[in-house]
Amino acid sequence: MPTLRFLPFSILLGVVGILCVGLTGFWCYHWRGGFGWDGTARMFNWHPVFMVTGMVVLYGAAALVYRLPLSRRGSKLPWKLLHAALALVAFLLAVLGLVAVFSYHKTRTIANMYSLHSWVGLTAVVLFSCQWLMGFSTFLLPWAPTWLRGLYKPIHVFFGCAIFMLAIAASISGINEKLFFSLNNATVLYSSLPPEAWFANTLGLLIVVLGWMVLWALSKPAWKRPELDSPEAQQPLLEEDK
Amino acid sequence: MPTLRFLPFSILLGVVGILCVGLTGFWCYHWRGGFGWDGTARMFNWHPVFMVTGMVVLYGAAALVYRLPLSRRGSKLPWKLLHAALALVAFLLAVLGLVAVFSYHKTRTIANMYSLHSWVGLTAVVLFSCQWLMGFSTFLLPWAPTWLRGLYKPIHVFFGCAIFMLAIAASISGINEKLFFSLNNATVLYSSLPPEAWFANTLGLLIVVLGWMVLWALSKPAWKRPELDSPEAQQPLLEEDK
Repeated sequence: MPTLRFLPFSILLGVVGILCVGLTGFWCYHWRGGFGWDGTARMFNWHPVFMVTGMVVLYGAAALVYRLPLSRRGSKLPWKLLHAALALVAFLLAVLGLVAVFSYHKTRTIANMYSLHSWVGLTAVVLFSCQWLMGFSTFLLPWAPTWLRGLYKPIHVFFGCAIFMLAIAASISGINEKLFFSLNNATVLYSSLPPEAWFANTLGLLIVVLGWMVLWALSKPAWKRPELDSPEAQQPLLEEDK
Repeated sequence: MPTLRFLPFSILLGVVGILCVGLTGFWCYHWRGGFGWDGTARMFNWHPVFMVTGMVVLYGAAALVYRLPLSRRGSKLPWKLLHAALALVAFLLAVLGLVAVFSYHKTRTIANMYSLHSWVGLTAVVLFSCQWLMGFSTFLLPWAPTWLRGLYKPIHVFFGCAIFMLAIAASISGINEKLFFSLNNATVLYSSLPPEAWFANTLGLLIVVLGWMVLWALSKPAWKRPELDSPEAQQPLLEEDK
């Protein structure tokens, strides 16, 4: 009975997801000066909010679309569209998150793309865009033959998890890096664990918990959508009538 | 024919694993002053080497024991022992890695356990020790009933992956943090991307690649050991003759 267990799990996952976004926003609002779109530190603050919302929470939601019990009934197409739409919004937020940090760096003449966090994070976003394009071309557009769809599917599923894990690693290293930058004067040293450090470290662990919950749901055999291998199940979005 | 493909994959994985350990050692030897066991920065340098060797490379090797084609033949017990032994050595190296960093902090009176890296890393080691103890008690000692073994197995497999991902995130945030600490004077700023930064950032990405390869091998259905559900397959190490 996957429906009975999936519902409370989804509610819990939703709460954790909302908490991740809310706590990231609260951190930036309460301790880091709030938000703006003016090239200052207030613009940088959109970076963690957009990245956590897009590359962690919405990405996780997109990955779990086919685990919804409702998705087992009827056509797969609406769920494919929902999966692609959530991933697209996640990608657009990630792009805005990159604009926020690059604009801030430009205003303050800070070098771009030198830290391991930036390398891992940008790799995650670039691979995510490739993943989206490949998924769209293969599973939604009409020209991919069924055998290619079958061949690519396990690769798409694997890289879905792999890039998600990269996004979690980028989040952890990013929060860590930001706290070292921000809590660096004698009155509020990161090493003295002020309230902000407790708060943001806890946020980091909560992001890990969210990542684990998504992986758990993905790995649970009973929650997987049965593959019918019917023509309908393989049907792309724009296939012409034959 | 999983044998044919598994062999070249294993060789490649072995090369990447040795590279991860070797490059971590070279980084600490060439740029960070080499090794010692004296509470100085030379003692700290064992921390990344032991952690990458234990919590990433040996952990990954332990996870893949049951993917060896040889493990499909005959008794499962030698493979259970190898799995447990590799994981135990990984855990002991992780403990030594913790001793190295705590001793260095004590000598230099640096605070312990404040950064998100340290929270994530210690969580990974503690959970890994729980995972080992639970696995040993359930799958090797005689008192766990078969139903408990069957119930716990998917949890053990899931947390095996989840903690491994945590170890990768800890490695990325740890390398990032160390580079910010070390490359912080006017002649060698991290932001100017000196050779050490290129080297260690690339090492970070290589660790991610290793993590992905392990996950890929674990997720490949053809490489999974068939579960026979026979009494022998469920047999603990120390079960008394009946």
